[in-house]
Amino acid sequence: MIKKERLFTPGPTALHPAVQAAIARPILHHRTDEFRGVFRDCRAGLKTFLKTSDEVLILTTSGTGAMEAALINVLSPGETMLALVAGSFGERWAALGKAHGMEVQTLEAPWGEAVSPAAVADALQKNHKIRAVFVQLNESSTGAMHDVKSLASLVRERPDTLLVVDAISGAGAIALETEAWGVDVVVVGSQKALALPPGLAFVSVSARAWERIEATKSPRYYFDLRREKKAQLEGESAFTPAIAHVVATKAALEFVASIGGVDGLVKNAGMLARMTRAAAHATGMPLVAPRDHGDALTALYAPPGLESGAIVKALKADFASTVAGGQGKLKGKILRVAHLGYYDTTDILGLIATLEIELQKLGHKFELGKGVAAAQAAYLEGARA
Amino acid sequence: MIKKERLFTPGPTALHPAVQAAIARPILHHRTDEFRGVFRDCRAGLKTFLKTSDEVLILTTSGTGAMEAALINVLSPGETMLALVAGSFGERWAALGKAHGMEVQTLEAPWGEAVSPAAVADALQKNHKIRAVFVQLNESSTGAMHDVKSLASLVRERPDTLLVVDAISGAGAIALETEAWGVDVVVVGSQKALALPPGLAFVSVSARAWERIEATKSPRYYFDLRREKKAQLEGESAFTPAIAHVVATKAALEFVASIGGVDGLVKNAGMLARMTRAAAHATGMPLVAPRDHGDALTALYAPPGLESGAIVKALKADFASTVAGGQGKLKGKILRVAHLGYYDTTDILGLIATLEIELQKLGHKFELGKGVAAAQAAYLEGARA
Repeated sequence: MIKKERLFTPGPTALHPAVQAAIARPILHHRTDEFRGVFRDCRAGLKTFLKTSDEVLILTTSGTGAMEAALINVLSPGETMLALVAGSFGERWAALGKAHGMEVQTLEAPWGEAVSPAAVADALQKNHKIRAVFVQLNESSTGAMHDVKSLASLVRERPDTLLVVDAISGAGAIALETEAWGVDVVVVGSQKALALPPGLAFVSVSARAWERIEATKSPRYYFDLRREKKAQLEGESAFTPAIAHVVATKAALEFVASIGGVDGLVKNAGMLARMTRAAAHATGMPLVAPRDHGDALTALYAPPGLESGAIVKALKADFASTVAGGQGKLKGKILRVAHLGYYDTTDILGLIATLEIELQKLGHKFELGKGVAAAQAAYLEGARA
Repeated sequence: MIKKERLFTPGPTALHPAVQAAIARPILHHRTDEFRGVFRDCRAGLKTFLKTSDEVLILTTSGTGAMEAALINVLSPGETMLALVAGSFGERWAALGKAHGMEVQTLEAPWGEAVSPAAVADALQKNHKIRAVFVQLNESSTGAMHDVKSLASLVRERPDTLLVVDAISGAGAIALETEAWGVDVVVVGSQKALALPPGLAFVSVSARAWERIEATKSPRYYFDLRREKKAQLEGESAFTPAIAHVVATKAALEFVASIGGVDGLVKNAGMLARMTRAAAHATGMPLVAPRDHGDALTALYAPPGLESGAIVKALKADFASTVAGGQGKLKGKILRVAHLGYYDTTDILGLIATLEIELQKLGHKFELGKGVAAAQAAYLEGARA
């Protein structure tokens, strides 16, 4: 039987065909006017994507490198940071802070929930030394999202505190108004909603954050955003960029523009998420984040008695579809299905139908087709709205 | 919303990614040892694909050109031919014969049915002048298939009659044992089960047919198979071939080998066809060829009161999926969904789910999800078998 490889993971996501074509073009030299034009177009497009007039820098690194760049540029060793920890990516903020000698304070939420703005307000009130708050827009390990708008409004009341948002997997799937909300630093990865391969990250920096960055004393070289800003305002990166990825980023941004911009991408993810949640309910798979879910992915508990890893393996073996299992304390318990990026209704209906087949084969009792029917009904309701 | 372009038409079909990569390679020159190697590999692979040790020629033409080549090489003007007409492609055999001054006798079946071997036996008995019988393995306009094995056995009893099979859309989706059954000429198109773009056709020729071809008096130049055979035995085509297509054909044949050869491809189409027929039954869409259906495609009548063109348009508008409508006398009445080529279970489940959505939107009364459930059950039954 033919089995087409399909990635339904919350990064890397499926490549857009225009990205595939662009990345395979002959390589440009990065110190040429031709490439500078492409680079400037990308930086302008990324500002539109993040809804900000702040500078957006293009870094050749994976998302974690850009998180580290954000952290060491806004904090000096020994300074106090508050990390909101709602899953394994929240833990990463704390680990990065510790690695660089920061005073790390954490606010934890049970996995599947978000840290509430009220808890953050309380923490900020109690500790005036907090120089920056670090949070995920979307916590990829659980599918929960944080209320970044409310968090930004809290943080902006304090002149000496910055808000740094890991929107690596959230941007383009969950609403984010960088400038209107007043988010100081946003980090985005290429291999998520933008349907690019991994290798690039994008960082927006507010005027307030630039002031801080100029004064920060953390040792930094490759990730020195001052150096990057200077170079990138001239249409170049400080060091050799992943040239083919930059060329492909322009194609990716054109794809996003073609479906109504980032709002179109967010709307698309929202529809697929509603369809998937409806199917989960109909087939008896509880949501990991029933209250705080975002639309970048849906995390589902395996039905009672089933190990989620067995479902992941069966989907791959029988249909060549890859969904993600659980991380950390959710390992073996959950499945994660991506909605961010280049996925459409037909994709998610096909995935739900094959997932039903595997649940049936593994002995879960439910009526075949019910998950698809619920997803179809959600689509029809959404299309009418 | 994101809408991925998906072709579910019985040609052209979806390209295999390895074909896409191969066809985009720098062009080779066709009078070089490198290209001759590729050309020889393709001809050898095509013999395996058609299950024959007969020579298979590669022609740069669409399928109709290869049908014409077959006809004018085995018949001289004024000779008598029998065309089995079970749909619009059967009519094409008759039209080609008339265009070249042949004495055309036809045996017609109602659209949706095949011409029976018994009727052919009777016709052959009554007219000893018939020099060749022309038939479709798969009649793409209705999804009916002919019993080529029985027809070959009838024709081989007559030393002066050849059997010419248009397997353009049938080969790789329906069993075909060219040599074992004794089929004299088989015509295949590139844009069908082999997941290539249109532009090439492949013609196998038996020893018996070569004798005839040497003696035939029809005027011919580009389509002179004698000239092609001479060139192709040396690893070249007589005229400039569609070079990139030939390179891609090698990739396509490697893909076929990777799924167990032509039998794997036929098995795959069979599974998708059974799933689609089950869904058709469950959603109240009668089959066009309930008895004589092949597995290259499924042709379905629109539910009572619906015009099939409206369903085709809606699927394209809402989901960017293209299925074929009806041709000739079935125009506006039927849908045709392809199974030949590079399609998998997830594809067909996604298509059935979106087709259900459109039927619901157009007012057809049925329980949403029932078609998918029937297809899932057919898959599970097939996977157990």
